[in-house]
Amino acid sequence: MYRTKTCGELRLADAGSIVTLCGWVQRTRKMGGMTFVDLRDRYGITQLVFNQEVNADLCDQANKLGREYVIQVIGTVAERSNKNPKMDTGEIEIIVDKLNVLNASIVPPFTIEDDTDGGDDLRMQYRYLDLRRSAVRRNLELRHKMAFEVRRYLDAHHFLEVETPVLIKSTPEGARDFVVPSRMNPGEFYALPQSPQTLKQLLMVSGFDRYFQIVKCFRDEDLRADRQPEFTQIDCEMSFVEQEDVLQMFEGMTKHLFKYIKNIDFTDPFPRMTWADAMKYYGSDKPDIRFGMKFVELKDLTEGKNFGVFDSVPFVAGICCPGCATYTRKQLDELTEFVKRPQVGAKGLVYVRYEANGNFKSSVDKFYSAEDLKAWAERFGAQPGDLMLILAGETMKTRKALCELRLEMGSRLGLRDKNVYAPLWVIDFPLFEWDDETQRFYAMHHPFTSPNPEDIDMLESNPGAVRANAYDMVVNGTELGGGSIRIHDSVLQDRMFKVLGFTEEQAQAQFGFLMNAFKYGAPPHGGLAFGLDRFVSLFAGLDSIRDCIAFPKNNSGRDVMLDAPSPIAQAQLDELSINVCLKKD
Amino acid sequence: MYRTKTCGELRLADAGSIVTLCGWVQRTRKMGGMTFVDLRDRYGITQLVFNQEVNADLCDQANKLGREYVIQVIGTVAERSNKNPKMDTGEIEIIVDKLNVLNASIVPPFTIEDDTDGGDDLRMQYRYLDLRRSAVRRNLELRHKMAFEVRRYLDAHHFLEVETPVLIKSTPEGARDFVVPSRMNPGEFYALPQSPQTLKQLLMVSGFDRYFQIVKCFRDEDLRADRQPEFTQIDCEMSFVEQEDVLQMFEGMTKHLFKYIKNIDFTDPFPRMTWADAMKYYGSDKPDIRFGMKFVELKDLTEGKNFGVFDSVPFVAGICCPGCATYTRKQLDELTEFVKRPQVGAKGLVYVRYEANGNFKSSVDKFYSAEDLKAWAERFGAQPGDLMLILAGETMKTRKALCELRLEMGSRLGLRDKNVYAPLWVIDFPLFEWDDETQRFYAMHHPFTSPNPEDIDMLESNPGAVRANAYDMVVNGTELGGGSIRIHDSVLQDRMFKVLGFTEEQAQAQFGFLMNAFKYGAPPHGGLAFGLDRFVSLFAGLDSIRDCIAFPKNNSGRDVMLDAPSPIAQAQLDELSINVCLKKD
Repeated sequence: MYRTKTCGELRLADAGSIVTLCGWVQRTRKMGGMTFVDLRDRYGITQLVFNQEVNADLCDQANKLGREYVIQVIGTVAERSNKNPKMDTGEIEIIVDKLNVLNASIVPPFTIEDDTDGGDDLRMQYRYLDLRRSAVRRNLELRHKMAFEVRRYLDAHHFLEVETPVLIKSTPEGARDFVVPSRMNPGEFYALPQSPQTLKQLLMVSGFDRYFQIVKCFRDEDLRADRQPEFTQIDCEMSFVEQEDVLQMFEGMTKHLFKYIKNIDFTDPFPRMTWADAMKYYGSDKPDIRFGMKFVELKDLTEGKNFGVFDSVPFVAGICCPGCATYTRKQLDELTEFVKRPQVGAKGLVYVRYEANGNFKSSVDKFYSAEDLKAWAERFGAQPGDLMLILAGETMKTRKALCELRLEMGSRLGLRDKNVYAPLWVIDFPLFEWDDETQRFYAMHHPFTSPNPEDIDMLESNPGAVRANAYDMVVNGTELGGGSIRIHDSVLQDRMFKVLGFTEEQAQAQFGFLMNAFKYGAPPHGGLAFGLDRFVSLFAGLDSIRDCIAFPKNNSGRDVMLDAPSPIAQAQLDELSINVCLKKD
Repeated sequence: MYRTKTCGELRLADAGSIVTLCGWVQRTRKMGGMTFVDLRDRYGITQLVFNQEVNADLCDQANKLGREYVIQVIGTVAERSNKNPKMDTGEIEIIVDKLNVLNASIVPPFTIEDDTDGGDDLRMQYRYLDLRRSAVRRNLELRHKMAFEVRRYLDAHHFLEVETPVLIKSTPEGARDFVVPSRMNPGEFYALPQSPQTLKQLLMVSGFDRYFQIVKCFRDEDLRADRQPEFTQIDCEMSFVEQEDVLQMFEGMTKHLFKYIKNIDFTDPFPRMTWADAMKYYGSDKPDIRFGMKFVELKDLTEGKNFGVFDSVPFVAGICCPGCATYTRKQLDELTEFVKRPQVGAKGLVYVRYEANGNFKSSVDKFYSAEDLKAWAERFGAQPGDLMLILAGETMKTRKALCELRLEMGSRLGLRDKNVYAPLWVIDFPLFEWDDETQRFYAMHHPFTSPNPEDIDMLESNPGAVRANAYDMVVNGTELGGGSIRIHDSVLQDRMFKVLGFTEEQAQAQFGFLMNAFKYGAPPHGGLAFGLDRFVSLFAGLDSIRDCIAFPKNNSGRDVMLDAPSPIAQAQLDELSINVCLKKD
C-alpha cells in the first residue's frame, strides 16, 4: 500500500504520529518561507507544510508541484496554529519529511473545484476530470449508498435479485428498441430490454415469489434532461399480493431510504390520491404536494355575465396565491407571458387581487361585480391579501397549463424547498388511453395491467372509464416509480387484448411466450419499478439525472469522452451480415 | 395478501392455528376416504388433508386438482400422525376448510421434480417451468446470496459500486464485440462492453479510489458449456496499491464468501504459485490442487537407453498414481485411449507398475532395467503399490496432455470432491505471449498490465521473459478471477505499445481517451475481475454455468424460450440506416 492513511481521516488526536499520504495536489501557496499544499483524495483534503528553513531542497520540490500532480508524502501530524473549522481535517497539518511525485499532470482544461470554470461540453469530454470534483463524486457515492440500502431492505423482505438477460427479443409495441445483430444467426437481431417486464412476470410463473433487480434498461428515444438511452430501474415483482400489499412494501422501502440516507423519519402513511383527483386538483398525474394552491373550478360562477372568453369554453379554473395581492402590473405581465409560452399553451391569464382592505381588483372588472368576485373568492377560500389566477379553455389542456402556473408560483413563493419531501401515491389510473390519431385504445401502462375488479363489467362497454389496478409513487412532483397488479387470468387477458384491438395472431406473435406460460398455473402477482436515476437525483437535489450518472450521454446519444457511437470496420459488418445504407440528404 | 403463511414455515408449535396458504399442487394422493395434497411454494412444501367423511364436496374438489394448479386454502394446522423427518414442515399438516382455485394449469411438458423427465431442450423452451424445480431455483437463490455478500464485503471496505455504460465504443483488439446501430447517428455503432476495463481505470484517474461493479459483459464468441454471450463479472479496481494489497483484499472477499455462504473457515493464507511452477508441476495455469500427483520430469534419467520415443523428444514427464499398481491391462488401455483423444493429443502412454512386492513392470521393460526404473521411482517418490504414468513429446503440449491425464486420474481416484475447496493464487504470469502466426507478441492480459519491476529492463531485449504484475485466483482447477497492477506511467505505457507493435497512431486511435486521461495525474492502481457465473457454479457444484443463469442461451446464442434473436421489421432497419445482406450458400 502506498499510504497508511487517507486525506480525510487525520484528527488532532493523531498529532505526533508519522503517516504516509497519497493524493492529488489541489493547490499550493507560498507564504514567506513556508509552502502549503492541499492534498486531495476521495476522502478529503489534508494540508501539507514545507519549511524553507528546515529543508530547502524539499521545499523547492514542493514549489514545483503543479495542480493535479499525484504525490506521496511521509510526514508528522501536527496541530495547526490556524485551524479551519470547515474541514474535518482542519485541526491538523502534515510536516512533510519526504515527497515522492507518483505522476505529473499537464494543466487540466478546467479547475477541479465545486465551482469550476469548465462548461458542460468540456466537462463531458473530460468527464474523468469532472468526476474528480467532489460535488459530482458525492452524487455517485449517494447512488452507491442508495442502491446498497435498496438491496438491504429487499433482501430482508425475502426478495431475490435475479439477473434477466440483456440480449432479448424485439417487441414492436412500446418505445423504440435498440437492436443487436446476431453473427451466429444471420439476418436476426436481439433487442436490448426496455424493461424486464415480461421476464419478471415469467419469474412469478416460476414461483420465485419475490423478485427484484437493479437493472439497466434501454430506450431508443429522443433525449432530454431526464432521459438517457440507458437508465437504471429498481425492478420488483411479488406473487400472491393485492395492490395494498405492494404499496405497503414499497412505501416501506422508500421510508427505509429516507431514514438511512437522508435521516428523515416518515412515521405517517404516505397520502394517496386518485388519478382523477390529481388531475382535478393539480392538473397532473404527478402533483407536487409540498404546497397547496389546489385548483378551484369556477365555470358555474362565471357564466352569463357576457364574458365571452369564459362563456365560450368548457372549463374555467384557477389557483389562489396567498399574500400575492400586491403583485405589480409587471409581475402579472410576466405571469401572463409565462402561461402564453408554447410549452404552457394558455391564451391568457385572468387575475383577481383580493386587496388587504377587502376590495377586489381584477382584469375582468368590466364583466364581474364585486359581488361576483366575492363569490369566487369564497370558493377559493381566499383571504384579503391573496391573488387569484384563472385560466380557461379546453379541460385537460387548461389543467396542464394551470399545473405549470401553479408550479411556477410555488417556486416564486419559495414553497418548493429541495430539502422538503412530500411523497404521494397516485392510484386508480385509467386502464386505457384513447388515441385520436389511430382511433383506438392503448394500454396506459402495458397490456398486462389488471383492471380494478369493480370496473371489469365496463371493459367492453365503456373502456375509457375502467380504472386500472395501477399506482405511481410521486415525490415533489417527480414520478419515482410505478406499477400495477397484473392480469393472471387468461380469459381476462384475452378480453384485454380484444379491447386493444389485437387479433389472436398478433397477441400470440408478440406475447406468445408469456401467454403460453400463463397456461401453466400463473399466480396472482404485481409489482413496480422505480427509476434509480431519478431517485438519486431527487435525494441529491439535482436538476438533471445526468449528474448522478458516471458516464452519461448527451442529447444526441453520444458519449463524447469515448467518442461513441462510431463507425465500425467493414469486416465487422460483413461478419454480422449487415450493411450501412445512409440516406442521401 | 392472499396468504398468512408460506408453505415452508409451519411447525408443530403452530398446531391449532388457522392459516391461509397459497401455492402450486405438487401432487395429490387418495388413501381411503382421505385426499392428501402436497402444496409447494418457493419456501417449501406443506401437506394438505381433505376428509371425505367430514366434507365430501370439498374432498371432491381436491380430487379434481391437477398438477401445478395454483390454489389458496384456509385450514387448521394439525400434528401429523405419520411424521416426515426429511421435510421442515414434516411434523404438521393442514386440515383444509376452504379451497380456492386461483388458476388452473394444463399438464406441464415435464415433471416439476428434482429428477425431472424433461430433456435439456424441452426444459430450456419451458424455462419458466424448469425454474420451478427446487434444484434449479436453489442455484439462483445462491447467486442472490453471493452477490449480496460480495456487496456487503466490498461496501465495508469502502468500495463504491459505480455503473459504467453498456453502450460504449467498439475496440477491434480482443474478442469480437456485439454492436448496436445508432439511429440518431446514422452509420455509427455502439459496442457492448467485453468488460469495463478502461472505464474502471478512468474511475481511478477520477480519484474514486475503490470501485466495484457486478456487471453484465458481452463477448460474441463461439459458445461452450462455460461460456455465454452475456456473463456477469464482479469487477474491481483500487488505487495506491501494490499486488500484495489486491491479493489480500480479494482473498479476504473470497474467505468472506466461503464463511457466510458455505460455512467454511479458511484461516490460513491461500497458497501462491508462480505461473512457471504451475506449468512445470501441473501443466496448467489453473491447477487443481485438491490432490497431489505433481509432474515429475524424467528426460535426463531416460536418455541413452535406445528408447527412440523418449530420446527423440525434448520432454519426458509423468505422474505417480498412489495405489494403482494393480491397474489391469484394460484399465491401462483405457488411459492410453484417453491420452490419445484429439482433445488431449498425446501419442501414447508409458506406464511403470511399482508392484507391492517391490518389482517393476512397465511397458518399456525392453529398454530400461529394474535399476533404471528404480531411479525413476525414487524421483517420483513412488511407493510399492503405485503406478507411474509417463508422457513424452514437445514440452508445452506434453504438459497439457499430462495435465488432462492427472485430472482424469484424480477423478478416478475420487480426489476431486466437489465439497472440498482448494483455493490458490497463480502469480507472475508472463507479460507477453508470442504468436507464431502473426509473428508478434500479444499482451497476455491486456496492454495496460504492468511488468514486474524486476523485469522492466528486459522489456525490449527479451520480452518473452518479462513477468507481469498479474494474478489469477484459481479454485479446484477453475479460474474464478484475475487481474493485474496497471501501468500508470505514460513513458512505460509507450514502451509497452512499441513492444506490441502499435504505431503511435494506432495506439492513439484505440486507446486515445485512456492515454489522454493518464496525462492528468493517474494514480498507481490495479484490480481484478471475478466471473460471478463461475463463482456460483463452483459453490453450487454445477458442471455448467448455464444452471446458475435464469434465462441462458444455447450454443447457437439463442434464447429458445423467447425465440431471440429474430428478424426485425424493415421499418426498424430503415430507421437504423442498415440493411441485412445474407450470404448465399
